[in-house]
Amino acid sequence: MITLQVHLGDRSYPIFIGAQLLASGGLIRDRVDSRQIMIVSNETVAPLYLESVEGMFADRIMDKLILPDGEQYKTLESFERIISALLTKGFDRSCTLIALGGGVVGDMTGFAAACYQRGVDFIQIPTTLLAQVDSSVGGKTAVNHTIGKNMIGSFHQPRCVIADIATLSTLPRRELRAGVAEVIKYGLISDPELFVWLESNVERLLDLDADCLTYAIRRSCENKAAIVAQDELESGIRALLNLGHTFGHAIENVLGYGNWLHGEAVACGLCMAAALSMEMGMLDAADYDRVVAVVQRAGLPDSPPAELDPNDLSAAMAVDKKSRAGRIRLVLMRAIGDAFLCEDYPADKFRQILESGGVPAP
Amino acid sequence: MITLQVHLGDRSYPIFIGAQLLASGGLIRDRVDSRQIMIVSNETVAPLYLESVEGMFADRIMDKLILPDGEQYKTLESFERIISALLTKGFDRSCTLIALGGGVVGDMTGFAAACYQRGVDFIQIPTTLLAQVDSSVGGKTAVNHTIGKNMIGSFHQPRCVIADIATLSTLPRRELRAGVAEVIKYGLISDPELFVWLESNVERLLDLDADCLTYAIRRSCENKAAIVAQDELESGIRALLNLGHTFGHAIENVLGYGNWLHGEAVACGLCMAAALSMEMGMLDAADYDRVVAVVQRAGLPDSPPAELDPNDLSAAMAVDKKSRAGRIRLVLMRAIGDAFLCEDYPADKFRQILESGGVPAP
Repeated sequence: MITLQVHLGDRSYPIFIGAQLLASGGLIRDRVDSRQIMIVSNETVAPLYLESVEGMFADRIMDKLILPDGEQYKTLESFERIISALLTKGFDRSCTLIALGGGVVGDMTGFAAACYQRGVDFIQIPTTLLAQVDSSVGGKTAVNHTIGKNMIGSFHQPRCVIADIATLSTLPRRELRAGVAEVIKYGLISDPELFVWLESNVERLLDLDADCLTYAIRRSCENKAAIVAQDELESGIRALLNLGHTFGHAIENVLGYGNWLHGEAVACGLCMAAALSMEMGMLDAADYDRVVAVVQRAGLPDSPPAELDPNDLSAAMAVDKKSRAGRIRLVLMRAIGDAFLCEDYPADKFRQILESGGVPAP
Repeated sequence: MITLQVHLGDRSYPIFIGAQLLASGGLIRDRVDSRQIMIVSNETVAPLYLESVEGMFADRIMDKLILPDGEQYKTLESFERIISALLTKGFDRSCTLIALGGGVVGDMTGFAAACYQRGVDFIQIPTTLLAQVDSSVGGKTAVNHTIGKNMIGSFHQPRCVIADIATLSTLPRRELRAGVAEVIKYGLISDPELFVWLESNVERLLDLDADCLTYAIRRSCENKAAIVAQDELESGIRALLNLGHTFGHAIENVLGYGNWLHGEAVACGLCMAAALSMEMGMLDAADYDRVVAVVQRAGLPDSPPAELDPNDLSAAMAVDKKSRAGRIRLVLMRAIGDAFLCEDYPADKFRQILESGGVPAP
């Protein structure tokens, strides 16, 4: 088992990465000393892993809430269901919430923990690759609004993150691929070595090779933890973690939440950001091709559906937390592993990328 | 004009107290440098003061949302209305929300500011005595749940608080009285001098004597700021500010939000806490009488409605953020100006206070 630390003063916490962490049990039990424990999961994950987590807390007052599965349920309504469950069962401020599932469960449970009685503890047990490499770490919690993704939320750090790679054996292929999108992202932001590693290992990663999974998760979490430690509340450098996400969130929103997976939309967003970076004369054409090639080898989309209206996409992109004064700010790349926040990209080239679905000019 | 400072490191902010602060305008304008400003108010306050606040920001992108007036609207639904208004109008993360109204408007607007895009700035312009002496200061934001008051919320400090005593001239008498309850509370917690002052001045205060209002607001805010600076997130001493509130919140909940004003329920709660403190042999009978006398002179209730079922009250009290392991924790008084958090009060005496409506045993 690997242990990483997210350094945030008195909000610091460990990330545990390894195989069979849920089966062993003691690790999780030792991290939760609350008398009352609420496990939040979804209809897909609960039948697989809820029982083993429940089994760890036979000596506590324990309850569970099983939500429907999918991004379309990451709503204020689901948030209210969690709060109501806690109140109905008489949970007090010393309770702990356990998020058992993917990014949707983690984001909603974290937001409920942030707001219940003005803040209670929670831990993350991510069961998808995407959640293990990205969303479970860093304390971003949120629900979606029909107008924009993650628009209602807060920063609330978990007490620990437990990434059990054994849970990935039951993950649908499509979701596994979606998780790879965020690993590619870290390579493109600041870790060219990780990107090169992916070029050699993406197929092995998708084949659930344990060493590859562990490496990809550890390296992704190291990248994220380093950035979050510098800028917990995203007043600066943390915005770089949004590479591909401004395009991606807009695609998710316009297609309707739950149609494309978050990671699929991000993969497409990475290619569009790479295309614009190349059009602006920054990213080499050869490196642009490398980005698209890895995305394709991961079985992820490199352009949005043809029927997607560029005007809709542009409008949805304006609803972004990085936007200022009506101006969309983008994370772009000077090179593979060198991302930056850009406010003054040329409008015509941006427009062209939207209209061509991310394909650069010939 | 008096300026107090709430000392909270990089979240420190000033409280301005004085007459005609809204009319002068510059003070508020100078504190808000956002391009986009959303004023949230209610149907009672907006016709009186919205225009002057709007007038300050003619050079900005400004919008407003007018909510219905009353505790029964302090809901997740109203919260969502604020979020939707911000999204619909394209407000970005650099915007500022202005809460113009009483405690309900302040708590909901603050909570929306805490959660919109994971946190934006807000300022408080409290227009009720209760909000000026208590709820606008200290960063507690929340909405109610049918099961319990303020159960969904967060700590989010405003950028400044502007308490214009001129706004109290339009405040209904009943609401003015309700505000006095919180002033009495500060006297009972830790400021015996303020309590003695109230014994001499409560009628002048209710007659809107400007010096009295300014003194009561300043002194209350000084008390609150000192406690909040020591314990922003209520892990200890801040719980004392809940004197009278465990009883009070339960009364509000059982009667239905909006029937009794918050301050009325708190006044009653103060008397019940005093009665239990006396029954336990701590508070002198003479001091208990002084508490009830001031509450009565302020025109506030000293016992709950006779029809209120003690079992309902007890059940509602268990839904309190101070409760641990099913045990209700109470703030009680050793003397006037000496409150403390009590876990081990005698159950029979507690029960007797609930059954007698706060009247001590003969």
